[in-house]
Amino acid sequence: MAQGTNSISLSVRIGICAPSTPFSREAADRVLALAARTHPQAELIFDEQCFLAEGHFAGNDKQRTDSFVALANDPSIDAIWFARGGYGAARIAEAAIGQLGDGSKKKIYLGYSDAGNLLGALYREAIGEVAHGPMPSDIARQGGEQAVCRALDWIVHRQQDVLEPGLTAGKKYAAFNLMTLAMMTGTKLMPNLRDHIVLIEETSEYLYAFDRAMFHLSGNLEAHGLAGIKLGRIGDIPENDRPFGESAEDIARRWCDRANIPYLGQADIGHDADNKIVPFGLLNI
Amino acid sequence: MAQGTNSISLSVRIGICAPSTPFSREAADRVLALAARTHPQAELIFDEQCFLAEGHFAGNDKQRTDSFVALANDPSIDAIWFARGGYGAARIAEAAIGQLGDGSKKKIYLGYSDAGNLLGALYREAIGEVAHGPMPSDIARQGGEQAVCRALDWIVHRQQDVLEPGLTAGKKYAAFNLMTLAMMTGTKLMPNLRDHIVLIEETSEYLYAFDRAMFHLSGNLEAHGLAGIKLGRIGDIPENDRPFGESAEDIARRWCDRANIPYLGQADIGHDADNKIVPFGLLNI
Repeated sequence: MAQGTNSISLSVRIGICAPSTPFSREAADRVLALAARTHPQAELIFDEQCFLAEGHFAGNDKQRTDSFVALANDPSIDAIWFARGGYGAARIAEAAIGQLGDGSKKKIYLGYSDAGNLLGALYREAIGEVAHGPMPSDIARQGGEQAVCRALDWIVHRQQDVLEPGLTAGKKYAAFNLMTLAMMTGTKLMPNLRDHIVLIEETSEYLYAFDRAMFHLSGNLEAHGLAGIKLGRIGDIPENDRPFGESAEDIARRWCDRANIPYLGQADIGHDADNKIVPFGLLNI
Repeated sequence: MAQGTNSISLSVRIGICAPSTPFSREAADRVLALAARTHPQAELIFDEQCFLAEGHFAGNDKQRTDSFVALANDPSIDAIWFARGGYGAARIAEAAIGQLGDGSKKKIYLGYSDAGNLLGALYREAIGEVAHGPMPSDIARQGGEQAVCRALDWIVHRQQDVLEPGLTAGKKYAAFNLMTLAMMTGTKLMPNLRDHIVLIEETSEYLYAFDRAMFHLSGNLEAHGLAGIKLGRIGDIPENDRPFGESAEDIARRWCDRANIPYLGQADIGHDADNKIVPFGLLNI
Protein backbone atom coordinates (compact mmCIF):
# COMPACT_ATOMS: atom_id res chain seq x y z
CA MET A 1 0.00 0.00 0.00
CA ALA A 2 1.12 3.54 -0.71
CA GLN A 3 1.65 4.60 2.89
CA GLY A 4 3.80 1.55 3.54
CA THR A 5 5.96 2.22 0.51
CA ASN A 6 6.46 5.85 1.45
CA SER A 7 7.22 5.14 5.06
CA ILE A 8 10.20 2.95 4.19
CA SER A 9 12.14 6.11 3.50
CA LEU A 10 10.35 8.34 6.03
CA SER A 11 10.93 7.48 9.67
CA VAL A 12 7.82 7.35 11.86
CA ARG A 13 8.69 8.69 15.30
CA ILE A 14 6.72 7.08 18.14
CA GLY A 15 6.89 8.63 21.60
CA ILE A 16 6.21 6.18 24.43
CA CYS A 17 5.20 7.33 27.90
CA ALA A 18 3.57 5.61 30.88
CA PRO A 19 0.62 7.60 32.30
CA SER A 20 -0.22 4.83 34.76
CA THR A 21 2.25 2.26 36.13
CA PRO A 22 5.99 1.65 35.53
CA PHE A 23 7.36 -0.19 32.52
CA SER A 24 10.53 -2.30 32.65
CA ARG A 25 13.72 -1.69 30.66
CA GLU A 26 13.83 -5.39 29.77
CA ALA A 27 10.39 -5.25 28.19
CA ALA A 28 11.31 -2.02 26.41
CA ASP A 29 14.43 -3.69 24.99
CA ARG A 30 12.34 -6.57 23.68
CA VAL A 31 9.90 -4.16 22.01
CA LEU A 32 12.78 -2.15 20.49
CA ALA A 33 14.43 -5.28 19.14
CA LEU A 34 11.17 -6.55 17.67
CA ALA A 35 10.34 -3.20 16.07
CA ALA A 36 13.84 -2.92 14.58
CA ARG A 37 13.26 -6.27 12.89
CA THR A 38 9.67 -5.83 11.76
CA HIS A 39 9.20 -2.06 11.38
CA PRO A 40 12.62 -0.57 10.60
CA GLN A 41 11.01 2.70 9.56
CA ALA A 42 9.64 3.17 13.09
CA GLU A 43 11.75 5.09 15.60
CA LEU A 44 10.56 4.15 19.09
CA ILE A 45 11.38 6.70 21.77
CA PHE A 46 10.83 5.31 25.28
CA ASP A 47 10.75 8.34 27.55
CA GLU A 48 12.80 7.76 30.71
CA GLN A 49 9.61 8.45 32.65
CA CYS A 50 8.39 4.98 31.65
CA PHE A 51 10.92 3.48 34.07
CA LEU A 52 10.27 5.73 37.06
CA ALA A 53 8.47 4.27 40.07
CA GLU A 54 6.78 6.23 42.83
CA GLY A 55 4.41 4.11 44.89
CA HIS A 56 1.88 2.59 42.54
CA PHE A 57 2.82 4.86 39.66
CA ALA A 58 5.44 5.43 36.95
CA GLY A 59 6.62 8.59 38.68
CA ASN A 60 4.49 11.15 40.46
CA ASP A 61 1.53 12.87 38.84
CA LYS A 62 3.64 15.79 37.61
CA GLN A 63 6.32 13.55 36.08
CA ARG A 64 3.73 11.47 34.26
CA THR A 65 1.89 14.59 33.08
CA ASP A 66 5.07 16.31 31.90
CA SER A 67 6.26 13.31 29.95
CA PHE A 68 2.98 12.91 28.09
CA VAL A 69 2.59 16.64 27.43
CA ALA A 70 6.16 17.05 26.12
CA LEU A 71 5.86 14.11 23.73
CA ALA A 72 2.36 15.07 22.60
CA ASN A 73 3.35 18.68 21.92
CA ASP A 74 6.51 17.74 20.02
CA PRO A 75 5.75 18.30 16.31
CA SER A 76 8.56 15.93 15.29
CA ILE A 77 6.74 12.99 16.90
CA ASP A 78 4.07 11.23 14.85
CA ALA A 79 2.40 9.03 17.44
CA ILE A 80 2.01 8.60 21.18
CA TRP A 81 1.98 5.01 22.32
CA PHE A 82 1.00 4.39 25.93
CA ALA A 83 3.41 1.86 27.48
CA ARG A 84 0.97 0.06 29.74
CA GLY A 85 -2.16 0.37 31.89
CA GLY A 86 -2.66 -0.39 35.56
CA TYR A 87 -4.08 2.71 37.16
CA GLY A 88 -3.05 6.34 37.12
CA ALA A 89 -4.10 8.07 33.89
CA ALA A 90 -7.33 9.35 35.50
CA ARG A 91 -5.23 11.38 37.93
CA ILE A 92 -3.42 13.32 35.21
CA ALA A 93 -5.66 13.35 32.14
CA GLU A 94 -7.58 16.57 32.77
CA ALA A 95 -4.48 18.65 33.58
CA ALA A 96 -2.47 17.05 30.78
CA ILE A 97 -5.06 17.70 28.08
CA GLY A 98 -5.22 21.33 29.22
CA GLN A 99 -1.52 21.74 28.38
CA LEU A 100 -1.71 20.41 24.84
CA GLY A 101 -0.98 22.74 21.94
CA ASP A 102 -0.97 22.58 18.16
CA GLY A 103 1.78 19.97 18.07
CA SER A 104 -0.56 17.46 19.67
CA LYS A 105 -3.21 17.55 16.98
CA LYS A 106 -1.70 15.64 14.06
CA LYS A 107 -0.85 12.48 15.91
CA ILE A 108 -1.97 8.96 16.51
CA TYR A 109 -2.65 8.06 20.16
CA LEU A 110 -2.80 4.35 20.91
CA GLY A 111 -3.41 2.27 24.02
CA TYR A 112 -6.12 0.59 26.07
CA SER A 113 -7.07 -0.39 29.62
CA ASP A 114 -6.33 2.47 32.02
CA ALA A 115 -4.92 4.53 29.10
CA GLY A 116 -8.57 4.77 28.04
CA ASN A 117 -8.82 7.77 30.37
CA LEU A 118 -6.47 9.66 28.06
CA LEU A 119 -8.00 8.23 24.89
CA GLY A 120 -11.42 9.39 26.08
CA ALA A 121 -10.23 12.84 27.13
CA LEU A 122 -8.31 13.34 23.85
CA TYR A 123 -11.33 12.24 21.84
CA ARG A 124 -13.59 14.52 23.87
CA GLU A 125 -11.40 17.46 22.76
CA ALA A 126 -11.05 16.16 19.17
CA ILE A 127 -7.27 15.95 19.52
CA GLY A 128 -5.43 13.60 17.18
CA GLU A 129 -6.38 10.20 15.83
CA VAL A 130 -7.27 8.17 18.89
CA ALA A 131 -7.30 4.38 18.74
CA HIS A 132 -7.82 1.49 21.17
CA GLY A 133 -5.26 -1.25 20.69
CA PRO A 134 -2.18 -3.11 21.96
CA MET A 135 0.56 -1.49 24.02
CA PRO A 136 4.26 -2.23 24.51
CA SER A 137 3.34 -4.11 27.72
CA ASP A 138 1.63 -6.76 25.59
CA ILE A 139 5.10 -8.06 24.70
CA ALA A 140 4.90 -10.04 27.96
CA ARG A 141 1.84 -12.02 26.81
CA GLN A 142 1.91 -15.34 25.02
CA GLY A 143 1.68 -14.28 21.39
CA GLY A 144 2.52 -10.77 22.51
CA GLU A 145 4.88 -10.09 19.61
CA GLN A 146 1.91 -10.29 17.27
CA ALA A 147 0.01 -7.78 19.40
CA VAL A 148 2.94 -5.35 19.38
CA CYS A 149 3.37 -5.78 15.60
CA ARG A 150 -0.35 -5.16 15.14
CA ALA A 151 -0.03 -1.84 16.95
CA LEU A 152 2.98 -0.90 14.83
CA ASP A 153 1.17 -1.96 11.67
CA TRP A 154 -1.49 0.57 12.59
CA ILE A 155 0.84 3.38 13.63
CA VAL A 156 3.34 2.97 10.78
CA HIS A 157 1.19 1.70 7.90
CA ARG A 158 -2.45 2.36 8.89
CA GLN A 159 -2.87 -1.23 7.81
CA GLN A 160 -6.58 -2.11 7.46
CA ASP A 161 -6.29 -5.78 8.37
CA VAL A 162 -5.43 -4.96 11.97
CA LEU A 163 -8.81 -3.32 12.59
CA GLU A 164 -11.49 -5.03 14.63
CA PRO A 165 -13.19 -7.10 11.91
CA GLY A 166 -16.73 -5.96 12.68
CA LEU A 167 -16.02 -2.27 12.04
CA THR A 168 -18.00 -0.81 9.15
CA ALA A 169 -17.18 2.28 7.12
CA GLY A 170 -19.51 5.17 7.78
CA LYS A 171 -20.19 4.28 11.42
CA LYS A 172 -18.74 5.85 14.53
CA TYR A 173 -16.83 3.85 17.13
CA ALA A 174 -15.10 4.03 20.46
CA ALA A 175 -13.64 1.26 22.61
CA PHE A 176 -12.84 1.03 26.29
CA ASN A 177 -12.15 -1.21 29.19
CA LEU A 178 -15.52 -1.40 30.92
CA MET A 179 -14.39 -0.33 34.39
CA THR A 180 -12.31 2.49 32.96
CA LEU A 181 -15.30 3.81 30.99
CA ALA A 182 -17.67 3.27 33.93
CA MET A 183 -15.41 5.42 36.10
CA MET A 184 -15.10 8.13 33.42
CA THR A 185 -18.86 8.64 33.09
CA GLY A 186 -19.94 11.96 34.55
CA THR A 187 -16.37 13.26 34.85
CA LYS A 188 -14.52 15.89 32.84
CA LEU A 189 -12.78 13.14 30.85
CA MET A 190 -15.94 11.65 29.34
CA PRO A 191 -16.33 12.12 25.58
CA ASN A 192 -19.62 12.56 23.77
CA LEU A 193 -20.52 9.09 22.46
CA ARG A 194 -23.78 9.98 20.72
CA ASP A 195 -24.33 7.79 17.64
CA HIS A 196 -21.27 5.72 18.46
CA ILE A 197 -21.02 1.96 18.68
CA VAL A 198 -19.08 1.45 21.89
CA LEU A 199 -16.95 -1.68 22.23
CA ILE A 200 -16.17 -2.72 25.79
CA GLU A 201 -13.93 -5.39 27.27
CA GLU A 202 -13.02 -6.44 30.78
CA THR A 203 -10.49 -8.49 32.66
CA SER A 204 -10.00 -9.90 36.15
CA GLU A 205 -13.37 -8.80 37.52
CA TYR A 206 -15.91 -11.05 39.21
CA LEU A 207 -19.13 -11.39 37.25
CA TYR A 208 -21.01 -9.56 40.02
CA ALA A 209 -18.61 -6.63 39.55
CA PHE A 210 -19.13 -6.84 35.79
CA ASP A 211 -22.90 -6.77 36.35
CA ARG A 212 -22.55 -3.78 38.67
CA ALA A 213 -20.38 -1.91 36.17
CA MET A 214 -22.93 -2.64 33.42
CA PHE A 215 -25.72 -1.33 35.68
CA HIS A 216 -23.73 1.85 36.12
CA LEU A 217 -22.63 2.26 32.51
CA SER A 218 -26.00 1.51 30.93
CA GLY A 219 -27.81 3.76 33.42
CA ASN A 220 -25.43 6.59 32.64
CA LEU A 221 -25.41 6.16 28.87
CA GLU A 222 -29.16 5.63 28.54
CA ALA A 223 -29.67 9.30 27.64
CA HIS A 224 -26.52 9.58 25.51
CA GLY A 225 -28.00 8.29 22.27
CA LEU A 226 -25.50 5.49 21.65
CA ALA A 227 -25.83 3.52 18.41
CA GLY A 228 -25.10 0.37 20.40
CA ILE A 229 -22.74 -1.63 22.58
CA LYS A 230 -20.58 -4.55 21.48
CA LEU A 231 -18.94 -6.89 23.94
CA GLY A 232 -15.28 -7.76 23.67
CA ARG A 233 -13.71 -10.52 25.70
CA ILE A 234 -14.36 -10.69 29.42
CA GLY A 235 -11.20 -12.47 30.49
CA ASP A 236 -9.64 -13.98 33.62
CA ILE A 237 -12.90 -13.93 35.58
CA PRO A 238 -11.99 -14.90 39.18
CA GLU A 239 -13.85 -17.85 40.69
CA ASN A 240 -16.49 -16.71 43.13
CA ASP A 241 -17.67 -18.87 46.03
CA ARG A 242 -20.68 -19.80 43.89
CA PRO A 243 -21.61 -19.52 40.18
CA PHE A 244 -23.10 -16.17 39.22
CA GLY A 245 -25.90 -17.76 37.20
CA GLU A 246 -25.57 -15.75 33.99
CA SER A 247 -22.90 -15.37 31.32
CA ALA A 248 -21.17 -12.05 30.66
CA GLU A 249 -23.14 -11.76 27.43
CA ASP A 250 -26.45 -12.40 29.24
CA ILE A 251 -25.51 -9.62 31.63
CA ALA A 252 -24.54 -7.15 28.92
CA ARG A 253 -27.66 -7.87 26.90
CA ARG A 254 -29.97 -7.51 29.90
CA TRP A 255 -28.61 -4.12 30.97
CA CYS A 256 -28.53 -2.85 27.38
CA ASP A 257 -32.15 -3.90 26.89
CA ARG A 258 -33.18 -2.16 30.08
CA ALA A 259 -31.50 1.10 29.01
CA ASN A 260 -32.78 0.89 25.42
CA ILE A 261 -29.23 0.65 24.07
CA PRO A 262 -28.96 -1.78 21.13
CA TYR A 263 -26.81 -4.77 22.08
CA LEU A 264 -24.88 -5.58 18.91
CA GLY A 265 -23.03 -8.80 19.76
CA GLN A 266 -19.39 -9.65 20.34
CA ALA A 267 -16.21 -7.83 19.36
CA ASP A 268 -12.61 -8.92 18.86
CA ILE A 269 -10.98 -6.86 21.59
CA GLY A 270 -9.74 -7.77 25.04
CA HIS A 271 -6.88 -7.84 27.51
CA ASP A 272 -5.05 -10.39 25.37
CA ALA A 273 -2.74 -10.82 22.41
CA ASP A 274 -5.66 -10.90 19.94
CA ASN A 275 -6.81 -7.39 20.84
CA LYS A 276 -7.61 -5.68 17.52
CA ILE A 277 -7.44 -1.97 16.70
CA VAL A 278 -10.47 0.29 17.07
CA PRO A 279 -9.97 3.86 15.81
CA PHE A 280 -12.30 6.33 17.54
CA GLY A 281 -14.87 8.31 15.60
CA LEU A 282 -16.24 7.99 12.08
CA LEU A 283 -14.60 5.12 10.23
CA ASN A 284 -13.42 6.14 6.76
CA ILE A 285 -11.97 3.15 4.92
CA MET B 1 -36.82 7.94 77.14
CA ALA B 2 -40.47 8.10 76.20
CA GLN B 3 -40.27 5.93 73.11
CA GLY B 4 -38.45 3.23 75.03
CA THR B 5 -41.04 3.17 77.76
CA ASN B 6 -43.92 3.01 75.33
CA SER B 7 -42.41 0.33 73.21
CA ILE B 8 -42.18 -2.14 76.07
CA SER B 9 -45.89 -2.72 75.70
CA LEU B 10 -46.13 -2.11 71.94
CA SER B 11 -44.48 -4.68 69.72
CA VAL B 12 -42.25 -3.30 66.96
CA ARG B 13 -42.57 -5.45 63.86
CA ILE B 14 -39.41 -5.66 61.77
CA GLY B 15 -39.59 -7.20 58.30
CA ILE B 16 -36.30 -8.67 57.08
CA CYS B 17 -35.60 -9.33 53.40
CA ALA B 18 -32.45 -9.92 51.36
CA PRO B 19 -32.29 -7.75 48.24
CA SER B 20 -28.78 -8.96 47.41
CA THR B 21 -27.30 -12.31 48.49
CA PRO B 22 -28.68 -15.24 50.55
CA PHE B 23 -28.81 -15.29 54.34
CA SER B 24 -28.46 -18.47 56.40
CA ARG B 25 -31.04 -19.94 58.76
CA GLU B 26 -28.35 -20.47 61.39
CA ALA B 27 -27.45 -16.78 61.39
CA ALA B 28 -31.14 -15.86 61.44
CA ASP B 29 -31.65 -18.11 64.48
CA ARG B 30 -28.77 -16.39 66.26
CA VAL B 31 -30.24 -12.95 65.53
CA LEU B 32 -33.71 -14.08 66.67
CA ALA B 33 -32.32 -15.50 69.93
CA LEU B 34 -30.32 -12.35 70.60
CA ALA B 35 -33.24 -10.05 69.87
CA ALA B 36 -35.57 -12.11 72.08
CA ARG B 37 -33.12 -11.56 74.95
CA THR B 38 -32.23 -7.90 74.39
CA HIS B 39 -35.27 -6.43 72.62
CA PRO B 40 -38.31 -8.51 73.62
CA GLN B 41 -40.62 -5.85 72.24
CA ALA B 42 -39.20 -6.44 68.74
CA GLU B 43 -40.88 -8.99 66.51
CA LEU B 44 -38.39 -10.03 63.82
CA ILE B 45 -39.95 -11.44 60.66
CA PHE B 46 -37.36 -13.12 58.43
CA ASP B 47 -39.05 -13.50 55.06
CA GLU B 48 -38.43 -16.94 53.54
CA GLN B 49 -36.91 -15.13 50.58
CA CYS B 50 -33.82 -14.45 52.74
CA PHE B 51 -32.91 -18.13 52.47
CA LEU B 52 -33.45 -18.58 48.72
CA ALA B 53 -30.43 -18.99 46.47
CA GLU B 54 -30.35 -18.53 42.72
CA GLY B 55 -26.83 -18.14 41.37
CA HIS B 56 -25.24 -15.22 43.13
CA PHE B 57 -28.52 -13.97 44.57
CA ALA B 58 -31.08 -14.61 47.31
CA GLY B 59 -33.63 -15.72 44.73
CA ASN B 60 -34.17 -14.25 41.30
CA ASP B 61 -34.81 -10.56 40.67
CA LYS B 62 -38.59 -10.99 40.90
CA GLN B 63 -38.46 -12.94 44.16
CA ARG B 64 -36.21 -10.35 45.77
CA THR B 65 -38.35 -7.50 44.47
CA ASP B 66 -41.61 -9.11 45.61
CA SER B 67 -40.33 -9.82 49.12
CA PHE B 68 -39.15 -6.26 49.65
CA VAL B 69 -42.28 -4.70 48.13
CA ALA B 70 -44.67 -6.88 50.17
CA LEU B 71 -42.93 -6.12 53.46
CA ALA B 72 -42.51 -2.42 52.66
CA ASN B 73 -46.16 -2.01 51.70
CA ASP B 74 -47.45 -3.88 54.77
CA PRO B 75 -48.83 -1.23 57.15
CA SER B 76 -48.49 -3.59 60.11
CA ILE B 77 -44.70 -3.62 59.73
CA ASP B 78 -42.74 -0.80 61.34
CA ALA B 79 -39.31 -1.28 59.86
CA ILE B 80 -37.50 -2.96 56.97
CA TRP B 81 -34.14 -4.38 57.90
CA PHE B 82 -31.95 -5.56 55.04
CA ALA B 83 -30.43 -8.95 55.92
CA ARG B 84 -27.08 -8.53 54.22
CA GLY B 85 -25.20 -6.97 51.31
CA GLY B 86 -23.09 -8.61 48.62
CA TYR B 87 -24.46 -7.51 45.29
CA GLY B 88 -27.95 -7.47 43.81
CA ALA B 89 -30.01 -4.54 45.11
CA ALA B 90 -29.05 -2.39 42.11
CA ARG B 91 -30.84 -4.87 39.85
CA ILE B 92 -34.19 -4.51 41.62
CA ALA B 93 -34.25 -1.09 43.28
CA GLU B 94 -35.83 0.95 40.48
CA ALA B 95 -38.66 -1.52 39.83
CA ALA B 96 -39.20 -2.14 43.55
CA ILE B 97 -39.49 1.53 44.47
CA GLY B 98 -42.02 1.95 41.67
CA GLN B 99 -44.32 -0.56 43.39
CA LEU B 100 -44.34 1.08 46.80
CA GLY B 101 -47.57 2.52 48.14
CA ASP B 102 -48.73 4.40 51.22
CA GLY B 103 -47.85 1.56 53.56
CA SER B 104 -44.16 2.06 52.77
CA LYS B 105 -43.97 5.64 53.95
CA LYS B 106 -44.05 5.42 57.74
CA LYS B 107 -41.20 3.01 58.20
CA ILE B 108 -37.59 2.79 59.12
CA TYR B 109 -35.30 1.28 56.47
CA LEU B 110 -31.92 0.12 57.73
CA GLY B 111 -28.87 -1.46 56.12
CA TYR B 112 -25.55 -0.66 54.44
CA SER B 113 -23.12 -1.93 51.81
CA ASP B 114 -25.01 -3.09 48.70
CA ALA B 115 -28.33 -2.27 50.44
CA GLY B 116 -27.24 1.35 49.90
CA ASN B 117 -28.81 1.09 46.45
CA LEU B 118 -32.22 0.78 48.12
CA LEU B 119 -31.43 3.32 50.83
CA GLY B 120 -30.44 5.81 48.13
CA ALA B 121 -33.46 5.11 45.95
CA LEU B 122 -35.86 5.33 48.92
CA TYR B 123 -34.28 8.58 50.05
CA ARG B 124 -34.46 9.95 46.51
CA GLU B 125 -38.23 9.43 46.64
CA ALA B 126 -38.54 10.64 50.24
CA ILE B 127 -39.97 7.31 51.37
CA GLY B 128 -39.64 6.43 55.04
CA GLU B 129 -36.86 7.07 57.52
CA VAL B 130 -33.75 5.76 55.84
CA ALA B 131 -30.65 4.96 57.88
CA HIS B 132 -27.21 3.45 57.26
CA GLY B 133 -26.26 0.93 59.91
CA PRO B 134 -25.67 -2.71 60.91
CA MET B 135 -27.56 -5.63 59.40
CA PRO B 136 -28.44 -9.11 60.64
CA SER B 137 -25.38 -10.45 58.77
CA ASP B 138 -23.15 -8.59 61.20
CA ILE B 139 -23.94 -11.31 63.75
CA ALA B 140 -21.10 -13.28 62.12
CA ARG B 141 -18.47 -10.65 63.01
CA GLN B 142 -16.37 -10.59 66.14
CA GLY B 143 -18.38 -8.28 68.38
CA GLY B 144 -21.29 -8.70 65.99
CA GLU B 145 -23.89 -9.01 68.74
CA GLN B 146 -23.19 -5.40 69.67
CA ALA B 147 -23.68 -4.34 66.07
CA VAL B 148 -27.01 -6.16 65.85
CA CYS B 149 -28.13 -4.68 69.18
CA ARG B 150 -27.13 -1.22 67.96
CA ALA B 151 -29.40 -1.63 64.94
CA LEU B 152 -32.27 -2.80 67.17
CA ASP B 153 -31.64 0.07 69.60
CA TRP B 154 -32.22 2.39 66.66
CA ILE B 155 -35.23 0.62 65.19
CA VAL B 156 -36.99 -0.09 68.50
CA HIS B 157 -35.94 2.84 70.70
CA ARG B 158 -34.51 5.52 68.34
CA GLN B 159 -31.72 5.55 70.88
CA GLN B 160 -29.45 8.56 70.35
CA ASP B 161 -26.24 6.99 71.60
CA VAL B 162 -26.08 4.63 68.63
CA LEU B 163 -25.71 7.50 66.17
CA GLU B 164 -22.39 8.26 64.50
CA PRO B 165 -20.84 10.54 67.13
CA GLY B 166 -19.93 13.38 64.73
CA LEU B 167 -23.51 13.98 63.60
CA THR B 168 -24.81 17.45 64.46
CA ALA B 169 -28.42 18.55 64.78
CA GLY B 170 -29.56 20.83 61.98
CA LYS B 171 -27.27 19.32 59.33
CA LYS B 172 -28.16 16.89 56.56
CA TYR B 173 -26.47 13.52 56.20
CA ALA B 174 -26.26 10.43 54.06
CA ALA B 175 -23.90 7.46 54.28
CA PHE B 176 -22.82 4.88 51.75
CA ASN B 177 -20.30 2.28 50.84
CA LEU B 178 -18.03 4.14 48.41
CA MET B 179 -18.24 1.69 45.51
CA THR B 180 -22.01 1.38 45.92
CA LEU B 181 -22.41 5.16 45.77
CA ALA B 182 -19.89 5.49 42.92
CA MET B 183 -21.95 3.04 40.89
CA MET B 184 -25.26 4.79 41.73
CA THR B 185 -24.08 8.19 40.44
CA GLY B 186 -25.85 9.13 37.23
CA THR B 187 -28.42 6.34 37.55
CA LYS B 188 -32.11 6.47 38.41
CA LEU B 189 -31.30 5.41 41.97
CA MET B 190 -29.15 8.42 42.86
CA PRO B 191 -30.65 10.77 45.45
CA ASN B 192 -30.15 14.52 45.55
CA LEU B 193 -27.32 15.09 48.05
CA ARG B 194 -27.19 18.89 47.85
CA ASP B 195 -26.16 20.39 51.22
CA HIS B 196 -25.55 16.94 52.66
CA ILE B 197 -22.50 15.72 54.50
CA VAL B 198 -21.85 12.37 52.88
CA LEU B 199 -20.12 9.68 54.93
CA ILE B 200 -18.39 6.97 52.92
CA GLU B 201 -16.69 3.73 53.88
CA GLU B 202 -15.05 0.93 51.95
CA THR B 203 -13.85 -2.62 52.39
CA SER B 204 -11.72 -5.15 50.52
CA GLU B 205 -10.66 -2.80 47.73
CA TYR B 206 -7.08 -2.11 46.65
CA LEU B 207 -6.02 1.48 47.30
CA TYR B 208 -5.72 2.04 43.53
CA ALA B 209 -9.40 1.02 43.21
CA PHE B 210 -10.26 3.32 46.13
CA ASP B 211 -8.42 6.16 44.37
CA ARG B 212 -10.27 5.40 41.12
CA ALA B 213 -13.65 5.34 42.88
CA MET B 214 -12.84 8.67 44.56
CA PHE B 215 -11.88 10.13 41.15
CA HIS B 216 -15.26 9.03 39.87
CA LEU B 217 -17.31 10.07 42.87
CA SER B 218 -15.71 13.48 43.36
CA GLY B 219 -15.91 14.25 39.64
CA ASN B 220 -19.58 13.35 39.61
CA LEU B 221 -20.52 15.16 42.83
CA GLU B 222 -18.50 18.31 42.08
CA ALA B 223 -21.60 20.06 40.74
CA HIS B 224 -24.00 18.61 43.35
CA GLY B 225 -23.35 21.17 46.08
CA LEU B 226 -22.39 18.75 48.85
CA ALA B 227 -21.72 20.20 52.27
CA GLY B 228 -18.77 17.84 52.57
CA ILE B 229 -17.43 14.29 52.66
CA LYS B 230 -16.37 12.37 55.75
CA LEU B 231 -14.33 9.21 55.58
CA GLY B 232 -15.37 6.11 57.47
CA ARG B 233 -13.10 3.12 57.82
CA ILE B 234 -11.41 1.70 54.74
CA GLY B 235 -11.00 -1.86 55.90
CA ASP B 236 -9.39 -5.12 54.73
CA ILE B 237 -7.28 -3.44 52.03
CA PRO B 238 -5.70 -6.26 50.00
CA GLU B 239 -1.90 -6.24 49.68
CA ASN B 240 -0.82 -5.02 46.28
CA ASP B 241 2.49 -6.01 44.65
CA ARG B 242 3.88 -2.64 45.81
CA PRO B 243 2.80 0.06 48.29
CA PHE B 244 0.38 2.60 46.83
CA GLY B 245 2.27 5.54 48.31
CA GLU B 246 -0.63 7.41 49.92
CA SER B 247 -3.04 6.66 52.74
CA ALA B 248 -6.78 6.37 52.15
CA GLU B 249 -7.24 9.71 53.88
CA ASP B 250 -4.60 11.36 51.65
CA ILE B 251 -6.51 10.04 48.65
CA ALA B 252 -9.91 11.21 49.87
CA ARG B 253 -8.59 14.65 50.77
CA ARG B 254 -6.82 15.11 47.42
CA TRP B 255 -9.87 14.25 45.32
CA CYS B 256 -12.20 16.33 47.53
CA ASP B 257 -9.85 19.31 47.22
CA ARG B 258 -9.73 18.96 43.47
CA ALA B 259 -13.55 18.89 43.22
CA ASN B 260 -14.02 21.74 45.74
CA ILE B 261 -15.87 19.43 48.12
CA PRO B 262 -14.99 20.12 51.78
CA TYR B 263 -13.18 17.15 53.28
CA LEU B 264 -14.45 16.98 56.85
CA GLY B 265 -12.34 14.25 58.45
CA GLN B 266 -13.09 10.76 59.68
CA ALA B 267 -16.35 9.07 60.59
CA ASP B 268 -17.24 6.10 62.76
CA ILE B 269 -18.76 3.84 60.11
CA GLY B 270 -17.39 0.84 58.28
CA HIS B 271 -17.78 -2.81 57.34
CA ASP B 272 -17.21 -3.83 60.95
CA ALA B 273 -18.92 -4.32 64.30
CA ASP B 274 -18.37 -0.68 65.30
CA ASN B 275 -20.45 0.66 62.38
CA LYS B 276 -22.62 3.44 63.88
CA ILE B 277 -26.04 4.59 62.69
CA VAL B 278 -26.41 7.46 60.20
CA PRO B 279 -30.01 8.54 59.54
CA PHE B 280 -30.41 10.18 56.13
CA GLY B 281 -31.56 13.76 55.77
CA LEU B 282 -31.87 16.61 58.26
CA LEU B 283 -30.87 15.52 61.74
CA ASN B 284 -33.44 16.56 64.36
CA ILE B 285 -32.26 15.57 67.81
